Amino acid sequence: MEFDRLRVVLVDARNPLNIGAAARAMSNFGFRRLRVVNPYDVAFQDARSAVGATSVLAAAEKYKTVTEAIADCSLVVGTTSVGPRDLQHSLKRLEHGARLIRKHLSSGNCALLFGSEKFGLSNEDMSHCHWLLNIPTREEHASMNLGQAVAICLYEFICDPRAPVKPDKRTLASSAELERITETLLQALRASEYPKLNTSVSFHSAVRRVIRRLRVQSGDAEFLLGMLRQMVWKMEQKK
Amino acid sequence: MEFDRLRVVLVDARNPLNIGAAARAMSNFGFRRLRVVNPYDVAFQDARSAVGATSVLAAAEKYKTVTEAIADCSLVVGTTSVGPRDLQHSLKRLEHGARLIRKHLSSGNCALLFGSEKFGLSNEDMSHCHWLLNIPTREEHASMNLGQAVAICLYEFICDPRAPVKPDKRTLASSAELERITETLLQALRASEYPKLNTSVSFHSAVRRVIRRLRVQSGDAEFLLGMLRQMVWKMEQKK
Repeated sequence: MEFDRLRVVLVDARNPLNIGAAARAMSNFGFRRLRVVNPYDVAFQDARSAVGATSVLAAAEKYKTVTEAIADCSLVVGTTSVGPRDLQHSLKRLEHGARLIRKHLSSGNCALLFGSEKFGLSNEDMSHCHWLLNIPTREEHASMNLGQAVAICLYEFICDPRAPVKPDKRTLASSAELERITETLLQALRASEYPKLNTSVSFHSAVRRVIRRLRVQSGDAEFLLGMLRQMVWKMEQKK
Repeated sequence: MEFDRLRVVLVDARNPLNIGAAARAMSNFGFRRLRVVNPYDVAFQDARSAVGATSVLAAAEKYKTVTEAIADCSLVVGTTSVGPRDLQHSLKRLEHGARLIRKHLSSGNCALLFGSEKFGLSNEDMSHCHWLLNIPTREEHASMNLGQAVAICLYEFICDPRAPVKPDKRTLASSAELERITETLLQALRASEYPKLNTSVSFHSAVRRVIRRLRVQSGDAEFLLGMLRQMVWKMEQKK
């Protein structure tokens, strides 16, 4: 996937915070080509001059029409929260659509269109699209915040369910370490005159099992042992 | 996964818009239990009274400390944009961590902690966590907007890479339809006195191939044919 082949196109965006948020998410995920179509100009200027405005925003291109903003793209995808029954277009869930876009970006440019905060994309905007993308929200509250919708789409492009699970460097304590903890805990219990110690024959085993269930990490074994030993020392001193 | 077992916990949130955005994303994806710890009170009140504030926000619970906010949770996960080298904790990428959280939510409560906009979670906040979660952003610009970070985490919980790809109801045009289009286009070309028609023997095949590459949909075949026929009619009238 070539990140610079994706154009994020905000159509009729009205809120400078949303334009800024879209640019920030792009920067977070490594996308750089932001285009705004017919923005509310004050909003666009406000967003650009905001503290912490990203270089993505500084390089954003302004267009008068969708036609111009998507001219160099061979795939045009619109985003919508509307259910399939009201649409003339093929509608794909984000998980599936993102795969198709990712594939397309290896060879061609793709425009991803987001409509205005209030109304979304118009029918005319959508007529430029090859198909539509839908974030699987609840039907009862389908309409997403613009900045969040952009962020989620971009995340879906870059996320990798097959990313290798990083092996945890922390290893579990060895049986020898666990046994030392078990013995020291028993010593502490004896020093504390813990009542069950003398009545239950299986108590030693019960303590051993509970220590194993704790999943003590190797680096923590000495730390725990030290604490127990200190308590043993204190209790035996009191006798 | 039981959605109501997840608690989204915003620690030291300062911006009412972010609190509102977090609540909106929760509502979009079907999560309802929002908790705020030590919020800037004006911000919390502003967020609650904002136009379009969700029922999630109305039901949000306020706590003084992280300890109280996570008391009923058996898994506590913190979010961070910091790289692994600076952390005392095990750090998991969102794609992997979300699977673990989803699994946990089938039997126990999980708290997902988000820190303040400026500083993220403190070391003390993190010490309550079993492990940490990281959205795979660019290293050069790792810090995400709070509302967007919440939205992406929740999306990763509900998204389903194995969601069945909805079969496209639109079917491709049949060969008979395509051949009718091909013939009518050739007729139109003849009527227009298109020059190549008479010089190239393979022209007929070339037109047939280009029509096949168009992936004309079944419902569009008649529409296209009608347009071509009208043009043929107009051109032949002029003779």
